[in-house]
Amino acid sequence: MNRKMVLYFISWILKIEAVCMLLPIATAIIYKEEQWMDFMVAVVIALVLSFIISIKKPDNHSFYTREGFVSVGAGWIVLSAIGALPFVLDGCIPNYIDALFEVISGFTTTGATILTDVEVLPKSMLMWRSFTHWLGGMGVLMFILAILPMAGKNNMHIVRAESPGPTAGKFVSKAKDSAVILYLIYIIITVVEIVLLLIARMPLFESMVLSFGTVGTGGFGCLNDSIGSYTIAQQVIITIFMLLCGTNFNLYFLLLTKKFKDAFSSEEIKVFYGVVFATSIAITINILGDYDNVFIAFKDAIFQVASIITTTGYSTVDFDLWPTFSKTILVVIMFMGACAGSTGGGIKVSRILIAFKTVGKELTTMIHPRNVKVLKFEGKAIDHDVLRGVNTYIMTFACVFVSSLLIVSLDKFDFQSTFTAIAATINNIGPGIGAVGPMANYSEFSWLSKLVMCFDMLAGRLELFPMLLLFNIRTWRKTM
Amino acid sequence: MNRKMVLYFISWILKIEAVCMLLPIATAIIYKEEQWMDFMVAVVIALVLSFIISIKKPDNHSFYTREGFVSVGAGWIVLSAIGALPFVLDGCIPNYIDALFEVISGFTTTGATILTDVEVLPKSMLMWRSFTHWLGGMGVLMFILAILPMAGKNNMHIVRAESPGPTAGKFVSKAKDSAVILYLIYIIITVVEIVLLLIARMPLFESMVLSFGTVGTGGFGCLNDSIGSYTIAQQVIITIFMLLCGTNFNLYFLLLTKKFKDAFSSEEIKVFYGVVFATSIAITINILGDYDNVFIAFKDAIFQVASIITTTGYSTVDFDLWPTFSKTILVVIMFMGACAGSTGGGIKVSRILIAFKTVGKELTTMIHPRNVKVLKFEGKAIDHDVLRGVNTYIMTFACVFVSSLLIVSLDKFDFQSTFTAIAATINNIGPGIGAVGPMANYSEFSWLSKLVMCFDMLAGRLELFPMLLLFNIRTWRKTM
Repeated sequence: MNRKMVLYFISWILKIEAVCMLLPIATAIIYKEEQWMDFMVAVVIALVLSFIISIKKPDNHSFYTREGFVSVGAGWIVLSAIGALPFVLDGCIPNYIDALFEVISGFTTTGATILTDVEVLPKSMLMWRSFTHWLGGMGVLMFILAILPMAGKNNMHIVRAESPGPTAGKFVSKAKDSAVILYLIYIIITVVEIVLLLIARMPLFESMVLSFGTVGTGGFGCLNDSIGSYTIAQQVIITIFMLLCGTNFNLYFLLLTKKFKDAFSSEEIKVFYGVVFATSIAITINILGDYDNVFIAFKDAIFQVASIITTTGYSTVDFDLWPTFSKTILVVIMFMGACAGSTGGGIKVSRILIAFKTVGKELTTMIHPRNVKVLKFEGKAIDHDVLRGVNTYIMTFACVFVSSLLIVSLDKFDFQSTFTAIAATINNIGPGIGAVGPMANYSEFSWLSKLVMCFDMLAGRLELFPMLLLFNIRTWRKTM
Repeated sequence: MNRKMVLYFISWILKIEAVCMLLPIATAIIYKEEQWMDFMVAVVIALVLSFIISIKKPDNHSFYTREGFVSVGAGWIVLSAIGALPFVLDGCIPNYIDALFEVISGFTTTGATILTDVEVLPKSMLMWRSFTHWLGGMGVLMFILAILPMAGKNNMHIVRAESPGPTAGKFVSKAKDSAVILYLIYIIITVVEIVLLLIARMPLFESMVLSFGTVGTGGFGCLNDSIGSYTIAQQVIITIFMLLCGTNFNLYFLLLTKKFKDAFSSEEIKVFYGVVFATSIAITINILGDYDNVFIAFKDAIFQVASIITTTGYSTVDFDLWPTFSKTILVVIMFMGACAGSTGGGIKVSRILIAFKTVGKELTTMIHPRNVKVLKFEGKAIDHDVLRGVNTYIMTFACVFVSSLLIVSLDKFDFQSTFTAIAATINNIGPGIGAVGPMANYSEFSWLSKLVMCFDMLAGRLELFPMLLLFNIRTWRKTM
């Protein structure tokens, strides 16, 4: 293990975080809030820590999967440990574990909160909460990759560890260039959403907070009823941008490079939008009895479907009051999640699609034993390693899910609440059903359960293995 | 598709079923019940139908996986269709779909009931209900294989389709001999349990009914409170026999042939008993507050764990009232299920074990990329086809589970009841939690949900593929 290289990355993460805190500091100054001091203290701590751990420069740059995964896993934990400080220093979240839960929920774009009343938070704190979504959405190490001059050949280990999906997305041959393009697309989408929300008469502050929450597929907002009080036009804009950010960013790269045919032939994106519309219509029919107007019912249905499948977690109504069929659909798409290469979480559409195809092939082989059809995804034969990776991912996911479920069930919440609390955190969604429904929060869980859910949120965002390796004793042994 | 061979098998299934109905007829005569007539009508219908479909003798004996799966799938449906008749004819279950649900629950050793009061049933009906467990436990086609003289080479397709586990168990080179040995072991275990229950002062009728229910890992009994009213000694005997029948029958064959070392080195059996004891102790600690005596708490805990993990479904107490932690453990072991090659259902310990090992290997490879450790199970390298089969099985299971969940959620039961109703039927357990808890029943579901659960029970018992192939249009096309 090349520990110095890992520390080198973490020191950069701390520097980036310090710079990012300038946004809430600016917010505090504009709104004349005294919380700028809390952020300043956190900035100083981050910079001092960064300096200390980077005193010893790495003497060799050897960097493999293991180092990549450990850098990402440890990096995100350090990021969160510092990011939680302003909440505790200000006192708006006095307990450090609660603050950690809140900020991990932010960085992992989960959007689950332990706050019973977000409306009392200072504006600078609201800004920081939502900005963590934006930072975590595309990945902090991807950002470092985009701005830092580094030897190119080992960067893919970082990309692979931090970006979601069964295969690491790479538009161009150099990982660094891919990271730059991704961040540019990301920034453009964010700016467009802010502008559209402004046009729809939302104040700048809320436009920014909600855009960060939407584009990062996070779910933190400014009001206790999430998105319920906003106008229909504003809700529709947010729906569209949730879906855009749950889409594989590869699409935008292909559109930018004018490869329209490739862009619109993506199986994953077709299935993603197919599921969104099919489930929205099913829910609309199911909830129609409670509405006077079919369009309003459809607007609420597609908002909620988009919010859950992209793992954002906003809500316009209390879907916990919907019939069991609609709630079950939402629970199912919680696990499905968004496209690979998007900012959303979950198992990912592409993995589900590959798993379905494997099942289909097995059935065909049973009927026609001489069948030699090759499994294809996005027009290409599925590599054996990808197939094994998908299977292993789903199994590992199930193991982490069940272990977490057992520990959190010690808290004596009912089965539905416990089950959906884990589903909503490991899939980075936010609200679940029952005691963790859209109008409820996670404050009542024990500190043990909160720590388990912190682990699950990080494991879900980083696609399991970085976190599992980090907490595996064998990773740290000097020799094999 | 060699349809005549399939019909030939089904005609034999009907003859066997007619013979088996002699047991409830004898019961009716002994207890002077008039229900012997209902069974006689069913016997006549079975024999006439058997005669009609076997008029055309099969002209060739070619028989492949497809024919094996279709014979088993269709055979079990015909078996259930006829087995349901006595209930309807008698009027104790007037609705045919309800009767079908009850008898499929019997044959698939599920033990889920639509009856609100089983104590009013005539003794002959109780006997038939439990005897279907015994028949379904080891498999009806296995029985035919054991008694019928047939060309040997294609029989493995039947064994593979009807017997549970990732690899088809075969003790000796000929499938027929294996079937004979299996049935002999099965009969011995059943007789021993009946004798032990008699010694523990249980009347013969109840000893037989409960032994059929235990040995087949079914769950139908004679009383509304399941096993709650029996003595501790009787409950302990049932606990032991549930565990014995959830164990891979390979163990008994090895013991009979004095291969003690092989018998006790089985990984699957060690893990199975490890899980049983670990979860029993965890539940004992969790429920201890409601008990005066730690031994009684442990007795109830291990009874329930044994009942759920072997997918029997008996209960001594209403575990729906236990804390969420204990209930969550039970839900988790519902999916795990018993050993391969036992009469129990679920995903099977061996599949879970292989899945866990795959995950472990993936982690090791990430830490040490040059690692070339071979995955082993029961001391042998895991064949690539077995590994793929396990993965496909779990994926297919998930697909069937989610589809069923969505349909049944239309019934507006709460999420917990809907979720555990599907879990309890597809894993062939019987009771779930909430509205389908041990003191409740399945009568309130819609006919659509009942049919879906009938499919799930059969799919669970026959390990998915026979049922999926049967309802797949491509299976029936003449040409590819």
